[in-house]
Amino acid sequence: MAKPTSLTTGSFTLPGEAGYEKLTLDLAKKWGADTIRDSDGTQLSPEILQAGYDIYSTVCLVRSVQPWARENLAKLQQNFLMSFPLVADKPTLVVELLKGYFNEQFVVNAEDDPKKWWQVFDRTTGKEVPKTQWSFEAKKGTVKITGAVAGHNYTVNFLAFRIWEEISMYNHITNNWGDREHLAAVDPMHPETQKVILAFLDQWLKEHPDTTVVRFTSMFYNFSWFWGSDQKTLRDVYSDWADYEMTVSPRALTLFAKKFGYKLTSEDFVNGGLYNSTHNAPSRRYRDYMEFIHDFVIEFGRKCIDLTHKYQKKAYVFYDDHWVGVEPNSSRFKEFGFDGLIKCVFNAFEVRLCSHSQGVDVHELRLHPYLFPTGLKGEPTFKAGGNPTLDAKNFWIDARRGILRAPIDRIGLGGYLSLVQSFPDFQDYIAGLTNEFRLLKSFHADGAPYVAPFKIAILSSWGNLRAWVSSGHFIPGLDYIELVESLAGLPLDVVFLSFDDLRQKGVPKDVKVLVNAGRAGSAWSGGHEWEDPEVSALITRWVQKGGGFIGIAEPSASATPGQLFRLSHLLGLDRDRGERLANGKYKFTVSTEPHFITADLEAPLDLGKDVDGVYVFGPETQVLVAKDNSPRLTTHAFGKGRSVYLSGHKFAYQNTRLIHRALHWAAHQEAGFATWNSSNIRTESAFFAKQKKLVVINNSGEPQKTVVQDARGKAIKVSVKAHDIAILDA
Amino acid sequence: MAKPTSLTTGSFTLPGEAGYEKLTLDLAKKWGADTIRDSDGTQLSPEILQAGYDIYSTVCLVRSVQPWARENLAKLQQNFLMSFPLVADKPTLVVELLKGYFNEQFVVNAEDDPKKWWQVFDRTTGKEVPKTQWSFEAKKGTVKITGAVAGHNYTVNFLAFRIWEEISMYNHITNNWGDREHLAAVDPMHPETQKVILAFLDQWLKEHPDTTVVRFTSMFYNFSWFWGSDQKTLRDVYSDWADYEMTVSPRALTLFAKKFGYKLTSEDFVNGGLYNSTHNAPSRRYRDYMEFIHDFVIEFGRKCIDLTHKYQKKAYVFYDDHWVGVEPNSSRFKEFGFDGLIKCVFNAFEVRLCSHSQGVDVHELRLHPYLFPTGLKGEPTFKAGGNPTLDAKNFWIDARRGILRAPIDRIGLGGYLSLVQSFPDFQDYIAGLTNEFRLLKSFHADGAPYVAPFKIAILSSWGNLRAWVSSGHFIPGLDYIELVESLAGLPLDVVFLSFDDLRQKGVPKDVKVLVNAGRAGSAWSGGHEWEDPEVSALITRWVQKGGGFIGIAEPSASATPGQLFRLSHLLGLDRDRGERLANGKYKFTVSTEPHFITADLEAPLDLGKDVDGVYVFGPETQVLVAKDNSPRLTTHAFGKGRSVYLSGHKFAYQNTRLIHRALHWAAHQEAGFATWNSSNIRTESAFFAKQKKLVVINNSGEPQKTVVQDARGKAIKVSVKAHDIAILDA
Repeated sequence: MAKPTSLTTGSFTLPGEAGYEKLTLDLAKKWGADTIRDSDGTQLSPEILQAGYDIYSTVCLVRSVQPWARENLAKLQQNFLMSFPLVADKPTLVVELLKGYFNEQFVVNAEDDPKKWWQVFDRTTGKEVPKTQWSFEAKKGTVKITGAVAGHNYTVNFLAFRIWEEISMYNHITNNWGDREHLAAVDPMHPETQKVILAFLDQWLKEHPDTTVVRFTSMFYNFSWFWGSDQKTLRDVYSDWADYEMTVSPRALTLFAKKFGYKLTSEDFVNGGLYNSTHNAPSRRYRDYMEFIHDFVIEFGRKCIDLTHKYQKKAYVFYDDHWVGVEPNSSRFKEFGFDGLIKCVFNAFEVRLCSHSQGVDVHELRLHPYLFPTGLKGEPTFKAGGNPTLDAKNFWIDARRGILRAPIDRIGLGGYLSLVQSFPDFQDYIAGLTNEFRLLKSFHADGAPYVAPFKIAILSSWGNLRAWVSSGHFIPGLDYIELVESLAGLPLDVVFLSFDDLRQKGVPKDVKVLVNAGRAGSAWSGGHEWEDPEVSALITRWVQKGGGFIGIAEPSASATPGQLFRLSHLLGLDRDRGERLANGKYKFTVSTEPHFITADLEAPLDLGKDVDGVYVFGPETQVLVAKDNSPRLTTHAFGKGRSVYLSGHKFAYQNTRLIHRALHWAAHQEAGFATWNSSNIRTESAFFAKQKKLVVINNSGEPQKTVVQDARGKAIKVSVKAHDIAILDA
Repeated sequence: MAKPTSLTTGSFTLPGEAGYEKLTLDLAKKWGADTIRDSDGTQLSPEILQAGYDIYSTVCLVRSVQPWARENLAKLQQNFLMSFPLVADKPTLVVELLKGYFNEQFVVNAEDDPKKWWQVFDRTTGKEVPKTQWSFEAKKGTVKITGAVAGHNYTVNFLAFRIWEEISMYNHITNNWGDREHLAAVDPMHPETQKVILAFLDQWLKEHPDTTVVRFTSMFYNFSWFWGSDQKTLRDVYSDWADYEMTVSPRALTLFAKKFGYKLTSEDFVNGGLYNSTHNAPSRRYRDYMEFIHDFVIEFGRKCIDLTHKYQKKAYVFYDDHWVGVEPNSSRFKEFGFDGLIKCVFNAFEVRLCSHSQGVDVHELRLHPYLFPTGLKGEPTFKAGGNPTLDAKNFWIDARRGILRAPIDRIGLGGYLSLVQSFPDFQDYIAGLTNEFRLLKSFHADGAPYVAPFKIAILSSWGNLRAWVSSGHFIPGLDYIELVESLAGLPLDVVFLSFDDLRQKGVPKDVKVLVNAGRAGSAWSGGHEWEDPEVSALITRWVQKGGGFIGIAEPSASATPGQLFRLSHLLGLDRDRGERLANGKYKFTVSTEPHFITADLEAPLDLGKDVDGVYVFGPETQVLVAKDNSPRLTTHAFGKGRSVYLSGHKFAYQNTRLIHRALHWAAHQEAGFATWNSSNIRTESAFFAKQKKLVVINNSGEPQKTVVQDARGKAIKVSVKAHDIAILDA
């Protein structure tokens, strides 16, 4: 259905707006749109719907059946919450379950037997309080504990229904929607709910004859987001973009036990109040539960998509909001039968995340800025004081690095189109941007751009399931995501390995460098996975034979007496967290010799919020940079292999170049580094061999000059304007 | 025997020097000495010995029997060492045991059966390698491991004799003594050695008729000090002032097993290379071993002291060097029968440490500077470029704070007296200093100075055994010792509790504030002791009833999911080490109201190397100071009690005042704070009630004015010259 794409038209989704029909159709032409969409808060009028464009229509199934949702409270979505800790001062302790939580989001689940599903913990001893020692008082919303020990700290894990769906709640409150209806999300885990949803979808499909693409936002379960009672001081009691907390229900737990042969408890979800944050190394039990939910979401999701296809419409899914259980990076994702995947992106890693998904024909990005008066942090965008064109340029140079490396099929915008009326320069810039995108897409169509002739693998607890992401958008200061953002724009073939992958298949043959990054205990560093000695032994043998290892922050961290990094012998160093006060530390000398890795450093190395207390074992560890007597960048030979340690990573021009060089060095591939690589660190280049096109992007707001070496070593001089791109025949 | 002390004579020990008899006797008179001592490297001539002064003579028993020591290698002292980790790349791995260690200090113990006493560890799995899989090759000094797993990391715990006693070694190497004999320390654990030592001592006592006091340096076992092979880059592989590593032997282990009913292993000592540093929370097994050695040192030490007394001489012990097992803070210390305890001091906490010891009549301090051309860090002292008078003033103001609070019987100096010849101002200053000391001593003689009317208790793994110390001299940046140094000069009654004390007897009745300070896992914070829920429950109940709690750095730290500080509920905060990325943090507001605790802050709070990542639970936690969005100083009411959190501590004028105020606040004793307290933070005051003397010391190098309030609230204005002291009738 989509219009054929030329270098000036197609592959672009425009947000239309009823009441601004002329503007919609004029900009559709100016920006070469082939598709028009609605947005949250806007509608499309018949004049737009019937103008010959493809039409995307948004639908959120779980909040689509509102009267029914209110009448079937027990079939709303729910989750476990941990009551805020309370210290006993006498044997009877009364816990107000929802104290501290937002009572417009939650009500206590009094439908399912608390004694069956809830748990009360004495957090001082770490033990569960016997069920005979507590009782639920439904009317008061309290749990009374008897036989409490004075001075002990108690919490209750309880089930709470969510009476306000979180995205609706966020938009409602943020935009002061007053007495507009609070939408609730139903739980399709119940067969009755599935029936109601399918009936709704069938009717909706009938009522949207002009819609060519159903844009599901998304499937059934939102990422986890628990709000607090005082939104000024603690709005987000807990929020994690990929945690499955909000999928749980007694029915799900019962089905899980039947399928997996063991029972999960409330504490598997609550985990002392940490829940199952994507950033922390996951337990095997939680991974089982994810698999269970993923299976369910595919099973019921498939029915919705089949129905959509029955109406000759395409089914696209939004990679956000209710995406939990969808898992576009899972090997099973293709089983949904989706036609497209749409990702809202700020950064290059999100571009790669979208492109990486297998199992859809169309990978589409929704770019920023969103057409809204203010940005996500409340800064002015499309209003007085805003400069949406500069915003668009900056967002584009962040995302473009990813688009240069990985194929994307479509881009688009969202929001209120009417807002761009008074910004003609924005209108012009987007026209150019869309053409730039179409050109890059045309290059990719003929084959991938040049990458270094070896693969690098990132080792984490999640492996490929959380490839190119940590959890949600960019988190400044989180070493792992800062690293992934750097890698997202580099001419490298990156794969993501889990510890299970490693145990089962070893390091893949074509991988020359293994990277492990993150703080101790994190899913990124690996946490408890390192307790398995075979993991470190396997990597050690691989490096002995010539493999490269790069450790960042607290790689392979899992403390034993005298050791923090399990791969300290590869790195020739370890980290002291204070327990080695009596152990001497080798007095290293910072190397003053030029080194391949630091060749492009222009300013003192700044790795952001990195780790200190690092000590090296001896002269075999070469310290390239140190600060406060703690090495920040080191190299170490081990067997036939090479290792590099970095105390952290921050996405910045020279750090991106540094990690790029470190990867080549660890791979023994210094020689090929210059090939098709741009000398100026504010620029990056890609060579598309089939088309013989050299693309150089300027990632800065100033004009840049650079030199790129071709495969025969010939230097090509290039100048690029601020934010701009240069395309050369090469 | 000691001469009676007046306000101008007595209580002072002068280091005499043969060849400088006139200087010795002139200065003895000028400084009011009643005693003359020898020092390492100096001797006393008959003219000095018979001038009518008491004579201290130094003796180090374990290195006194040199020809015998060399002839009885198997009776030298020994210890377990861990070989430096080595990664296998094939099934056979040969470990050079002493590689990396100083071969003039150690030789491998090939006398005692390695298979009985040593252990080989696969540090990758954490498991011991079966004894059938390794063999010791004595000639090569190696252990050959067979069946090693490639990629695994191996270490050998082995016994090594020490062929060079460490204090002798340090002085020898530091002073370039060339081919002077290397002294070795014999182990009195062997009955034969005891005989030899007692025979030596008997003879020595006979040969020293002029000696009135035998100054033992000290008993038998030195603090732990393992040197590396390359002294430029890693001299101290391991050094800990209070670790019992250097007391071990097969005989000791055999006797231990007989007495305690279980066997210790090499790993109880090696502990993955961490050994048993005083700074880390000790195991119960190690504490048993300390008790065993303490018992032995008392048993044999008593024999040496009895013999000394038989010759009508007094026995003083040096609280340093070979002091391990002596434990002057133990309740059994009095069993030795020592007459005096001599502590070399730089700081106030060391003064308190000396004064705190029960079981000797005389507590003596050796002050700094040591009469040596250079100081401990190599800086000039008694030579060109040095200013020993200023040094002496600065050392004196550091130590004097402690002397003001706690009674000390004597002071003295050490080193080469001849060096002071060309520093007449130094000679004058010491004359004044000794008189100042005698005056303070005379005040103490009539009763203790005023202290706040409540006790404070420091809770640590060590309790009273390590009261007023961490391990050795002052360690800048170590929060616990920085704190103890502040407290050492404050008008407070401080007691030191262990977790066992707390479990057995609760918080003592007269204690109003409990303090827990230090990093997670340290002996100071308590580490694994906090795993006992009764500890936190007991403290919680005590605070509920009105007790005060002050937590510094990582108090009560022992991680469970969702919690780091076990007493977080008392403090109203906890620390996030990265695992709470998905958990929201309460947005606190830094209080702008004046507060009792911060009333004397003159400059922005600087707590040194403190901890970050602290988050508060809600508005009940009052944040007084924050930095980088992490609270640094907070207060929190809990039950009837009060808690204060400080993110660290650094000994500095305003921080000392801050902790002083915090202690009064936590005790609900703000009202009495001003009583006999000096308003100017650069000064401190003490009121001796019996003598009605108010003493004000100036801890700075500039003149100061201050106001002290008497018990009726009357303000007393005082001016004090730089470094000086003011004595007022009050």
